[in-house]
Amino acid sequence: MSIVVVGSVAFDDVTSPAGSVKGVLAGAATYFSLAASYFTQVRVVAVVGEDFTAEHEQVFQRRGIDTRGIERAKGKSFRWGGTYGENLNEAITDFTHLNVFENFDPKLPAEYADTEFLFLANIQPKLQANVRRQMKAVKLTGCDTMNFWIQGARHDLTETLKLVDVLLINDTETKMLAGESNLPRAAQKVLALGPKALVIKHGEYGATIFFREGAYGIGRHPFRAPALPIEKVIDPTGAGDSFAGGFMGYIASQEEVNREVIKRALFYGGVMGSFVVERFGTERLQSLTREEIDERFQIFRELTHLD
Amino acid sequence: MSIVVVGSVAFDDVTSPAGSVKGVLAGAATYFSLAASYFTQVRVVAVVGEDFTAEHEQVFQRRGIDTRGIERAKGKSFRWGGTYGENLNEAITDFTHLNVFENFDPKLPAEYADTEFLFLANIQPKLQANVRRQMKAVKLTGCDTMNFWIQGARHDLTETLKLVDVLLINDTETKMLAGESNLPRAAQKVLALGPKALVIKHGEYGATIFFREGAYGIGRHPFRAPALPIEKVIDPTGAGDSFAGGFMGYIASQEEVNREVIKRALFYGGVMGSFVVERFGTERLQSLTREEIDERFQIFRELTHLD
Repeated sequence: MSIVVVGSVAFDDVTSPAGSVKGVLAGAATYFSLAASYFTQVRVVAVVGEDFTAEHEQVFQRRGIDTRGIERAKGKSFRWGGTYGENLNEAITDFTHLNVFENFDPKLPAEYADTEFLFLANIQPKLQANVRRQMKAVKLTGCDTMNFWIQGARHDLTETLKLVDVLLINDTETKMLAGESNLPRAAQKVLALGPKALVIKHGEYGATIFFREGAYGIGRHPFRAPALPIEKVIDPTGAGDSFAGGFMGYIASQEEVNREVIKRALFYGGVMGSFVVERFGTERLQSLTREEIDERFQIFRELTHLD
Repeated sequence: MSIVVVGSVAFDDVTSPAGSVKGVLAGAATYFSLAASYFTQVRVVAVVGEDFTAEHEQVFQRRGIDTRGIERAKGKSFRWGGTYGENLNEAITDFTHLNVFENFDPKLPAEYADTEFLFLANIQPKLQANVRRQMKAVKLTGCDTMNFWIQGARHDLTETLKLVDVLLINDTETKMLAGESNLPRAAQKVLALGPKALVIKHGEYGATIFFREGAYGIGRHPFRAPALPIEKVIDPTGAGDSFAGGFMGYIASQEEVNREVIKRALFYGGVMGSFVVERFGTERLQSLTREEIDERFQIFRELTHLD
């Protein structure tokens, strides 16, 4: 089955203790698309500027990603620059130039209308809701957001969350959205806002999924997937979006959405997040094989598996 | 088989958002002993003052713990007071009165000499080494420490680590001891100091064990056990010591120390840590049953288990 992703396609300048790169193809929709493309057919909705060349488009097309939803606008693409220090947990933003992304008004190509899975990457919650409403055949919608919208557009965000099946955010965002410092209690408060499930990404500690009572016939028991302890992190940018790509892509590839599929999806999310950080930008995601992915899935599985 | 634990027996005043208690029986050796007592025979080495009554001793004896190594000294027992804020991750210390603990010189009763397992709770590293050297029949030694000794007694600590099989510390302590911010790389540096294995406790995210190449015929692959997301944390004091009690106690109860035993031990550590925080002080550890423990073990197992 197919999945539509709406979000940013950008060019990043990144500095980390491992070195630095300039103008590499990036953005949430790019990381998500590439990660999900190993599992299912991906359709992108984004806006780019005149600096987005045929060569950049080929990065998507080589992975079989449908780029008909990438709108071309006059001007430059979204550009972001960031620097990671020794601990690599958080980037210091050097600059954010929204450029053509500032007036992004996502338009769905008619050919995308029958898509059954949707991922709303981190953009203005109102735009997320608009996209969701345009998609009539959707079976499952995933959604990301960030502190900026939680604090600055809470009303829009809570309206959007009513339309969302699975929200994927991190610990800090969960606590902020719920106004509650205990994570499982915060999770229940977030689920009360609408989503059937909440995936909380813990960075190097993995991720936990909490379910609303009765959602997917699953009950409230959470499930946790570990992350592989990684010795060589080159560039953490895009880890969360790649996690979402692995998670949503795997779900979209399955006949049915049930607890076992969601559990495996959480592992595949961690796997894709662990690959992307091994190189700058999207480089690692451009040339993986399904065999490498499944091999790492087994390592993740064994990491916490009792006989 | 039996295990000797050397460490503090104390009385705590604790305030948390759930309430407050005064003068409750606590201390690392107490938490450890009670947690380990559900798996194996425990022998304590500690020092207490005149405020330690027969009633307190019965808390140990009701769990079959050998208290012949609890030395009585003139004066008061170690007393600690702490307050937890909303996030419960770290206590603010209100007071620390070492009292009789200040001149603690651990003496092993002759009856403890044949013990095969040893846990050195968080005390001065020189004292830890002295105890280890007195125990001639030991097969496996576990050890805890803290920032205070890492910064203030590094030489003594590195000497002690040469005598230790498994070190159990948290993320911050690992990075500080290694002088390295990447956790898996820090783990390798710590293992180079002597221990065959390093258990890094991640609090609510569980724990990871790293092995020195070839230790226990296991190779270098780490293993990770999750922690249960807990909605009602009353008092986090003693979670790490109870983790160590479950971990070491389970290992001491088994015929052989191999990878599968160590993996299960890591889960049992998490289980005991998850129980203790449900009540103030050691209350929850005083009246568990092995059935409750194994039930929670199953929940932990299912939390990350793929079919």
